[in-house]
Amino acid sequence: MVLKEAVACIGDLDRELMSKAKKRLDSLTKPLGSLGRLEELVQQIVGIKEEMFPDVHKKTVIIMCADNGVVEEGVSSCPKSVTATVTRNFLRGITGINVFTKFLDADIAVVDIGVDDDIECEGIIKRKIRKGTWNIAKGPAMTREEAVKAIETGISIVKDLKEKGVGLLGTGEMGIGNTTTSSAVSIVLTKAEAEEMVGCGSGLSSQGLKNKIEVVKKAIRLNKPDASDVIDVISKVGGFDLAGLIGCFIGAAAYRIPIVIDGFISATAALAAVKLEPKVKNFIIPSHASAEPGCKKVMEELKLKPMLHLGMRLGEGTGAALAFNIIECALYAYKNMGTFEDANIEQYVEQV
Amino acid sequence: MVLKEAVACIGDLDRELMSKAKKRLDSLTKPLGSLGRLEELVQQIVGIKEEMFPDVHKKTVIIMCADNGVVEEGVSSCPKSVTATVTRNFLRGITGINVFTKFLDADIAVVDIGVDDDIECEGIIKRKIRKGTWNIAKGPAMTREEAVKAIETGISIVKDLKEKGVGLLGTGEMGIGNTTTSSAVSIVLTKAEAEEMVGCGSGLSSQGLKNKIEVVKKAIRLNKPDASDVIDVISKVGGFDLAGLIGCFIGAAAYRIPIVIDGFISATAALAAVKLEPKVKNFIIPSHASAEPGCKKVMEELKLKPMLHLGMRLGEGTGAALAFNIIECALYAYKNMGTFEDANIEQYVEQV
Repeated sequence: MVLKEAVACIGDLDRELMSKAKKRLDSLTKPLGSLGRLEELVQQIVGIKEEMFPDVHKKTVIIMCADNGVVEEGVSSCPKSVTATVTRNFLRGITGINVFTKFLDADIAVVDIGVDDDIECEGIIKRKIRKGTWNIAKGPAMTREEAVKAIETGISIVKDLKEKGVGLLGTGEMGIGNTTTSSAVSIVLTKAEAEEMVGCGSGLSSQGLKNKIEVVKKAIRLNKPDASDVIDVISKVGGFDLAGLIGCFIGAAAYRIPIVIDGFISATAALAAVKLEPKVKNFIIPSHASAEPGCKKVMEELKLKPMLHLGMRLGEGTGAALAFNIIECALYAYKNMGTFEDANIEQYVEQV
Repeated sequence: MVLKEAVACIGDLDRELMSKAKKRLDSLTKPLGSLGRLEELVQQIVGIKEEMFPDVHKKTVIIMCADNGVVEEGVSSCPKSVTATVTRNFLRGITGINVFTKFLDADIAVVDIGVDDDIECEGIIKRKIRKGTWNIAKGPAMTREEAVKAIETGISIVKDLKEKGVGLLGTGEMGIGNTTTSSAVSIVLTKAEAEEMVGCGSGLSSQGLKNKIEVVKKAIRLNKPDASDVIDVISKVGGFDLAGLIGCFIGAAAYRIPIVIDGFISATAALAAVKLEPKVKNFIIPSHASAEPGCKKVMEELKLKPMLHLGMRLGEGTGAALAFNIIECALYAYKNMGTFEDANIEQYVEQV
């Protein structure tokens, strides 16, 4: 599905069924509303999937992998080659997200959307736009056409997963330099200062952080992205992984699958997708509060509150995966708890 | 084990093994420290269990059930009989904590430590001190001897679970009126104002809340609990469920089992246990930020930060149970992630 079609077919939540779900929640043997955000999650997912008892047991974290030309400016503590190495390691099963998803009974979909190397491992989803973006400190990251193509790649990945019966999505990424591009994109979209948005990524020194802030400022000054045109922002100061994730959020909304934000890069992509089409917001679920400072700002702009406060900053979709369990537990409780009738209790009545 | 013995045998964490665990965490294929609090949890549990790869798969939520005489002051939106009904429902498998623990592959241990009814269901652990406390608005809740006996009950429950191979504990409770007693106890222990500590419990109106605040103030004024003597505080303005949970925290420390706080009542018991013996703190793990306002204050006094922000206020140990999954995932990642050597990456080096 091309981008325009996908955006056009994004519908609303099923409010009528959500009311029915709320009624059921209120009939369960607990004080009214006492499961807090779990009750909101249940209603949201019922509204997304248009089913009274939605099935989310098939869960996948999509990991967009791409290189970023800006790494040549010394913005990361890691050499660029780590992107390709870790991408291969996703397929070898030894990374953080591998063990998290194994523990949580979820799958991963590893997408080479722009790694600067030939990734030939079994299981890789080959959708390379180009071998890494250009250096945003010297010009645009990619062409407008490439940005659209990368977004549409994300949409098509979601379509494929939908056809495989996946009921819940998480978003992850791997790309050395992508906290730099995410900083640039989110500064433009939120109008925040670089100093509050740029963080240490995988482990910069304070000197490295200073340099990264300067690079981000320079990229914005030089490329003059138009904040009212998301595709312009992404093509000028974004990355292929970011663009692919934007497509995942749009695709999830178009194909009506709940999709979980991970950390800073993923949240930035979610914000960009919501700026493209506000209805996307209804399909998004927050997960953790990343230790990367920009993430807080972006989540505030999205008006989403993280559920998990774990000080994590690994990326790869690890925070999103942890939220899967909370979501599934919420749906399980909603389906399986006894009602007041079962429980021989009058409904708790004094609530005002 | 009697209380004094239990307190005397609480040891320190195994710092040497914790350093070894830290070294392993730093060798895993991720930026240093990027799993945040999951890495702290791993080290804490290694230090508690004195094993490099501790096993916590056998998990139990202890639910202390008891009635509170203060209910006759109109401090709850529920009739007192709900305590006995819900206690029976724990054994019938239809409550919130039943479905949470079923989903999370954990067990529950339901203790009748003072329900004002005869609970004869299969599976109930009968340790009734008395059929409910006296009304704290008219005098002490219990005698000093009863308080010690209730605490020792908690210790003995933990001992029994230790012998059954339980590796991770959660704390839950059921007792109409127990946010009132917890408010009184935590006000005395933290010196906070009643207005910031007392909340709506299972669903009071604003008029009901005003009355509850007055009742709590009256109970403290009348009984004059000695803040420096935890047993005095518990016996004068506490409850059997609270006292039992204090025993669980002390027992967990004595028998070296990590123990997870749930909501306000459980956090109050944890604080009381730590005031009795500061070393208990090392064995405690926080879970969620309860919507009950006093919980925040008590967690601050404990210097513990909740991991889950879900606006839950159900009690029963449901928040603690949700934390089990995070703890297990942390230990699983620590054991199963690849090392930098496996991953063909130089360790991320620039971290300062």
